[in-house]
Amino acid sequence: MTTTMAQPFNPDDFVSTRSKNRNFKHFWINVPKVDNPHEAPIQLIGGMPNHNFFPVKAANVDLREKPFCENAASTFQIETIPSDPTKLGIKDALQYSDDGGLEPLREQIRQIVKRVVNPVSDNWDVICTHGGCDGIYKTFDIIINPGEVVLFEEFTFTPVLNFLSEKGGIPIPIKLEKCFTPNPSFDYVDELEHLLDNWSDIYPNLPKPKLLYTIPNGHNPLGLAQSFEHKLRVYDLATKHNFMILEDEPYGYLNFTKYDQEPNFELTNDEFLKSITPSYLTIDNVGRVIRSETFSKVYSPGLRLGFNVMNKSFIQKFVDASQACNRGASGYSQLFVNNTINHLGGVEGWIHWIIQVRNEYLQRKNTFVTALQESEAHNKGYLRAIDPDCGMFVTVIINLDKHKLFADKNYNNLMDSVYIAAAETGFLAVLGRNMSVNESFSTERSNFLRCAISFASTHEMLIEAAQRLSFSLIKLFE
Amino acid sequence: MTTTMAQPFNPDDFVSTRSKNRNFKHFWINVPKVDNPHEAPIQLIGGMPNHNFFPVKAANVDLREKPFCENAASTFQIETIPSDPTKLGIKDALQYSDDGGLEPLREQIRQIVKRVVNPVSDNWDVICTHGGCDGIYKTFDIIINPGEVVLFEEFTFTPVLNFLSEKGGIPIPIKLEKCFTPNPSFDYVDELEHLLDNWSDIYPNLPKPKLLYTIPNGHNPLGLAQSFEHKLRVYDLATKHNFMILEDEPYGYLNFTKYDQEPNFELTNDEFLKSITPSYLTIDNVGRVIRSETFSKVYSPGLRLGFNVMNKSFIQKFVDASQACNRGASGYSQLFVNNTINHLGGVEGWIHWIIQVRNEYLQRKNTFVTALQESEAHNKGYLRAIDPDCGMFVTVIINLDKHKLFADKNYNNLMDSVYIAAAETGFLAVLGRNMSVNESFSTERSNFLRCAISFASTHEMLIEAAQRLSFSLIKLFE
Repeated sequence: MTTTMAQPFNPDDFVSTRSKNRNFKHFWINVPKVDNPHEAPIQLIGGMPNHNFFPVKAANVDLREKPFCENAASTFQIETIPSDPTKLGIKDALQYSDDGGLEPLREQIRQIVKRVVNPVSDNWDVICTHGGCDGIYKTFDIIINPGEVVLFEEFTFTPVLNFLSEKGGIPIPIKLEKCFTPNPSFDYVDELEHLLDNWSDIYPNLPKPKLLYTIPNGHNPLGLAQSFEHKLRVYDLATKHNFMILEDEPYGYLNFTKYDQEPNFELTNDEFLKSITPSYLTIDNVGRVIRSETFSKVYSPGLRLGFNVMNKSFIQKFVDASQACNRGASGYSQLFVNNTINHLGGVEGWIHWIIQVRNEYLQRKNTFVTALQESEAHNKGYLRAIDPDCGMFVTVIINLDKHKLFADKNYNNLMDSVYIAAAETGFLAVLGRNMSVNESFSTERSNFLRCAISFASTHEMLIEAAQRLSFSLIKLFE
Repeated sequence: MTTTMAQPFNPDDFVSTRSKNRNFKHFWINVPKVDNPHEAPIQLIGGMPNHNFFPVKAANVDLREKPFCENAASTFQIETIPSDPTKLGIKDALQYSDDGGLEPLREQIRQIVKRVVNPVSDNWDVICTHGGCDGIYKTFDIIINPGEVVLFEEFTFTPVLNFLSEKGGIPIPIKLEKCFTPNPSFDYVDELEHLLDNWSDIYPNLPKPKLLYTIPNGHNPLGLAQSFEHKLRVYDLATKHNFMILEDEPYGYLNFTKYDQEPNFELTNDEFLKSITPSYLTIDNVGRVIRSETFSKVYSPGLRLGFNVMNKSFIQKFVDASQACNRGASGYSQLFVNNTINHLGGVEGWIHWIIQVRNEYLQRKNTFVTALQESEAHNKGYLRAIDPDCGMFVTVIINLDKHKLFADKNYNNLMDSVYIAAAETGFLAVLGRNMSVNESFSTERSNFLRCAISFASTHEMLIEAAQRLSFSLIKLFE
């Protein structure tokens, strides 16, 4: 066992060489100093079309009162030039703009972050992204050099592995054994501590990790949330071993009670926010945590809009990374989100909307988990649902040891049989192993299906799905 | 002089190693074969929120009749689920979708390309991008390996150099001497031929070029258009020396007549399309040309939406490049563009709208060039405007040899004086040298200012701008 002294956090030490080397020439900036600038110069610099060239002049937008409400509850207007500066209009939103996001929206997001996340440090800012994937991709871009290591929970949202591989980073999984016990807990800190303290023995050819990527609330695929105590201990390890933490938070707002408890659908905003486990940013007083959010789950995915919260010293690096490829997010998306939040009454109205979204997910979750736990296959011990803490996924663990052929077959072959049997019965979900960082590392914990409760049109479909799965397992196992 | 035999074009030879190595694991795809699939399976696979979670239900959008028309001419509705399958609705546009673009829009774009570009080959398809920059960035991504060479016109839209440097490519400029003659012509084929035939002598340490990046119509910054004959000869060189051509076409639609000719503002669609010099795609029968378009100039920049037209074999590579970072374009942007085009009457209505945009730019161009050519500074020989063939820029050449200090100072210092004098008189434009690929290569042709005619609110401002520039030059030169 090696010991490491806690090191002071220096953001510059974490910036990738690729990011440091970006030294863009901007043709509109590199000009000689003008000693006596004109007070009303005519700008023929940028190739920006005057907004009167834009075909769209205005719009009226109908909003739902809450999810699955058929009638439109209210309407807001999109103007060319709104008189209220907290609104976005066609003129600014559809023009070229700051690649970090339009200022009214960024300010709106800052207010949301203050209210919802409440970072302990003051040295943070927000930056708009093209959604969660873009926020994670560009975080890897500005942090990770080829050959550097990122830690992942052993099951994860695997597209992020593609983003890391683009930057030449190396993913190392952390075992999640406690998630698969009968009383599952999203606690891997002992595992992580052991790994870090014995790094050079376990991975003699790899540098120590530079970053931990985590989905702490409503983990994808497992649906669990880390306790605040767990976060405190992980953060201590980050300080001791000097790595950063990327907190991916698409699902945290969809925060649940247990399926066998009476749900509360009348939460006040304060009660709701108190129910969510605090962010790593509430612990982080030096700026080693980056938080990535998306509007995909609480507004809609097609927006391709999200934001990162991070240490101010990374903001310009992130903007540079955007200017190196895809520039800023769509002005329409920014306009719709900004003006929707505005119309709903700002931060408090937005949180109220999110609670309505959460309520629908909570109902779905309880319906599906109840149907699974009351199913015949559950009674016979063939399956067990992890009752998720938040998010849009229910993980169903398949007890393969009850399978008649358990002794003969390997996990992957058995799970293939489960997948095929379920599919032929009309039940489709994601195979656990497909969400592993390293399939062989995780084989013995891959005996699960990830079930998304988000897309079904009705709750009855979720009940029917649980019954189909149950039926297929009984047929297969007996 | 070396001779090179024409080589058959093989798209695979041009795909970058980076692109070839992309082998993404998609957690929702890698599943065992189901022999007897259920006829109505319940999908719990993707984390897609049901569209009834989306806050926006519908919208009414007011369109202008033509640019700078104050009144809204007509209104179209955005529905959740439109009955007309050529329209996009909230349900599909705001959902996760194909990273290459939503099918109704892609089909709309295919129809536009057929009508407007009319590629000679059949083996092409379109793919949506996050705008022109994204289309160019990802083209470099899928084509260019570190150390490979891309040819550029010596003055260009310099942000593309940043995109290339991200991929480790090496930019080499082509001299544009004929653009700066009294009768400017965007013809550099002799220069290019000499460069290619003597490549190993001129650049002994560089591989031969893999790609030519060109802005053929309404070149940025010079505003000129290549003749069709020029394109034929460049394409011959591409065949002979086996390189690809990336045709960046943001400005081609803004197609002008000369400032001293009577403009025709009543062009039919056929007349208008005939007036535009045909694309390299009308020559390219093997698929070595990629065309990049944007909706920024003819709809609005804030959309962050454009498209590439290319050989079908590159399409999946491009999608992979998107999946490796920022995914597809905003669904709102795609919806607005698709439904606007649809509402205007499809391809013909869209071309009609573009003609209205072009008419306004043509008026501005004529106003500004006339004001420059009638200015006192012009009469005294201090400046000369390049009357642009298309686009949104007017290049003003400053005759530095008329400057009292011409003998003593270098070009850069003199142009600094010009810039400062103009700025202090209230005229701001882009210094020519800031748009060069290689400043020292182009010094002697950098004595110009690029003036964007797109942003000014009124034509009077353009006249005033020309007068201010004239005034500042007279003050400086005399």
